[in-house]
Amino acid sequence: MTWEPLVVALPPWVAGAAPAGTALPPDERMGLVLELARRNVAEGTGGPFAAAVFESASGRLVAPGVNVVVPSAVPVAHAEIVALGIAGRARGSYDLGADTELVTSTEPCTMCFGACLWSGIGTLVTGATTADAEAVGFDEGPKPPDWAGELRRRGMIVVTGRRREEAAAVLAAYAAAGGPIYNGRSGGPGAPDRSMIPSPGGSHA
Amino acid sequence: MTWEPLVVALPPWVAGAAPAGTALPPDERMGLVLELARRNVAEGTGGPFAAAVFESASGRLVAPGVNVVVPSAVPVAHAEIVALGIAGRARGSYDLGADTELVTSTEPCTMCFGACLWSGIGTLVTGATTADAEAVGFDEGPKPPDWAGELRRRGMIVVTGRRREEAAAVLAAYAAAGGPIYNGRSGGPGAPDRSMIPSPGGSHA
Repeated sequence: MTWEPLVVALPPWVAGAAPAGTALPPDERMGLVLELARRNVAEGTGGPFAAAVFESASGRLVAPGVNVVVPSAVPVAHAEIVALGIAGRARGSYDLGADTELVTSTEPCTMCFGACLWSGIGTLVTGATTADAEAVGFDEGPKPPDWAGELRRRGMIVVTGRRREEAAAVLAAYAAAGGPIYNGRSGGPGAPDRSMIPSPGGSHA
Repeated sequence: MTWEPLVVALPPWVAGAAPAGTALPPDERMGLVLELARRNVAEGTGGPFAAAVFESASGRLVAPGVNVVVPSAVPVAHAEIVALGIAGRARGSYDLGADTELVTSTEPCTMCFGACLWSGIGTLVTGATTADAEAVGFDEGPKPPDWAGELRRRGMIVVTGRRREEAAAVLAAYAAAGGPIYNGRSGGPGAPDRSMIPSPGGSHA
């Protein structure tokens, strides 16, 4: 018997909301990503997080991603991981190249911060901040305090706070609507017992 | 047109080396993982890193994983990510549960450290240290200095240095044989130009 592969599929609506062949100028890329995050909540297909890999110069969409942790039963299926993984397969290389950029609706969590390092992307553009995510109960994990500086020292261009208010509003609306927020290990003294946290949940970025 | 899913398949030899139905006592779990790491190199199917998720009490193998970054063209396909992802699908939940443990041949990189947090595993057991990996040229990324403490504060049991010498020898043998070591962003002043690093490469843990 062979082991099943790791498979993470995008929800079917993504093909309509972010069609292959899409190309966008820099100012419009975050708008698409925020629309994917809102839509992911509205469709009930995952948490309020989305990301996309673009070619920086041409603006061509290489791969979209949304958080599908709960429906896929894959704990690592954050939006950034999904977008970077699909992008690698689309380009035929694990090294996406310095001409690619990852646009993400919220600053990356600890895991996705690491994924940015290994993907070879040249640019990272983020929307809502770690503080915005934590303000509504998501756990981003213990990142280096100067995580953006760590990326810049490795040659990456990092732009934070792109359309931040609109991005933060996506998170706040999800939380206000009672979207469950689940953290596998929410940490620290006084952290809630895991069995008391409703599941399925939205997870973190 | 729909987007292709993210797919990461284990090399076919894994089904023979780590068959479904395997159950091992605690002392033998790292041995299996180190055999997978050695075999991954010998078969030419990826870097010198392997991992596996077990049920802690029964010792049943839930999912193996090996580093297949280069052959899969997926930058996030580290051994731990692959094992955790396949395990989630096998169990039908992104929360693997406190009775599961991840055994990994080398301490997790920044990305995989974060993945441990979100997977819900109860125990992490590691072999070679971050220093062992960096000594032969791999980049583990900027983890919190007390990364094990960060996991323990979130309720996880962390055991480091299990069969460390044997685990470090796997890395050293790979490097000594001229196995390429590729880091997407190897960082810091004086870091080599990426175009000068031979590709395809072994990547990090």
